[in-house]
Amino acid sequence: MDEPFVSEGRVRLAEAVRHLIDAALTAEDATTDQLTAAADDVERIAAELHGREQLGARPSGVRARAEESHDDYLPRSPLVGKASPLAPPIEYEYRDGKLFGRGVFHAAYEGPPGYVHGGWIALAFDEMLGMANIASGHPGMTGRLSVRYRRPTPLHEPVTIESWTEQVDGRRIVTRGTLAVDGVVTAEAEGLFVIIDLERALEYFGERAYERRQVVDPLP
Amino acid sequence: MDEPFVSEGRVRLAEAVRHLIDAALTAEDATTDQLTAAADDVERIAAELHGREQLGARPSGVRARAEESHDDYLPRSPLVGKASPLAPPIEYEYRDGKLFGRGVFHAAYEGPPGYVHGGWIALAFDEMLGMANIASGHPGMTGRLSVRYRRPTPLHEPVTIESWTEQVDGRRIVTRGTLAVDGVVTAEAEGLFVIIDLERALEYFGERAYERRQVVDPLP
Repeated sequence: MDEPFVSEGRVRLAEAVRHLIDAALTAEDATTDQLTAAADDVERIAAELHGREQLGARPSGVRARAEESHDDYLPRSPLVGKASPLAPPIEYEYRDGKLFGRGVFHAAYEGPPGYVHGGWIALAFDEMLGMANIASGHPGMTGRLSVRYRRPTPLHEPVTIESWTEQVDGRRIVTRGTLAVDGVVTAEAEGLFVIIDLERALEYFGERAYERRQVVDPLP
Repeated sequence: MDEPFVSEGRVRLAEAVRHLIDAALTAEDATTDQLTAAADDVERIAAELHGREQLGARPSGVRARAEESHDDYLPRSPLVGKASPLAPPIEYEYRDGKLFGRGVFHAAYEGPPGYVHGGWIALAFDEMLGMANIASGHPGMTGRLSVRYRRPTPLHEPVTIESWTEQVDGRRIVTRGTLAVDGVVTAEAEGLFVIIDLERALEYFGERAYERRQVVDPLP
């Protein structure tokens, strides 16, 4: 069987696991017995999917399929990935030179009570800024990311993320973004991205450098 | 029943869900039928934990218990939380004025093939820098976080995160951190944290400001 990685079943599983993560963190009245029974069932399901009798001490799965492009990556993105249980997921659209993201952060993303964790906001900017660069035709690797937190971002409310390539200067790309709720900007970011050369790409990625050619300078 | 939030059952459930997330992302040969059957089972388990007949369109759980301190928060941290399925989790220890973290990022945290997602690195710094400030007696809210990525951080290998309060000047706290693999620093961060006043805390958190008193100036 060589089904595509992203199937209807995989997207449904990711959605179900998001609900399970939510329950693990917010079903505060569940008893130890209920939680233990759930853990037993979940372990069995995970082992079956892995095709193993027993799970190891810690997650150790490794992807085998090579990715041909950024589109192959997006379904497993921790922010926008419809196949990733970690992702809210945020919906996105590129128009008029800007990448727009829209979605809701639920309880799993909570930091201070009632608000989104600052680390998740930084993660969201890293991903959205990198995606904006790819959309604008200037893909690179993050060199520096700076996030300014203006005020707390509420959970459970629709958020809007905007990001755009601000400036391209040789191998250096400057990219900016904002996160807003109800029209009020709660955080903003600036990223410096770099286009790496083939030598560096080979050092980092070995043969996989060729899979990463979208961030590598064209050969002279 | 008023069991503590963090029970043996809840920690085991978080561990099991980590394996399930890993399977959802790395069991590439699972068929759509297998994935759909797993999704059905997982939905049933999540609904039972929530005490509901049906799950809603999206996760919508809300924590009801008030948190008294940062120690109440830590088990649900997306980085170090033993009760959070999102967390690797990273182990930590404060000694000699520094917070040391140690752990392994598995496949769920992958960005470029074989390497940790830059957004997860930013999230890790946000959390570890904030924790270092609390440990050093200078808790604050993140005002700005800047992460410099020196080279890719490999998945599946032990990482070390160090963080420390560098400087305290009135309400402003400067905090730094490094992420290393095998003694080689792959990323570093600087955070500017701020101690907010009670007026601002009441605006952000309402009555919950009093729960957040650890980041609020003592009343004059």
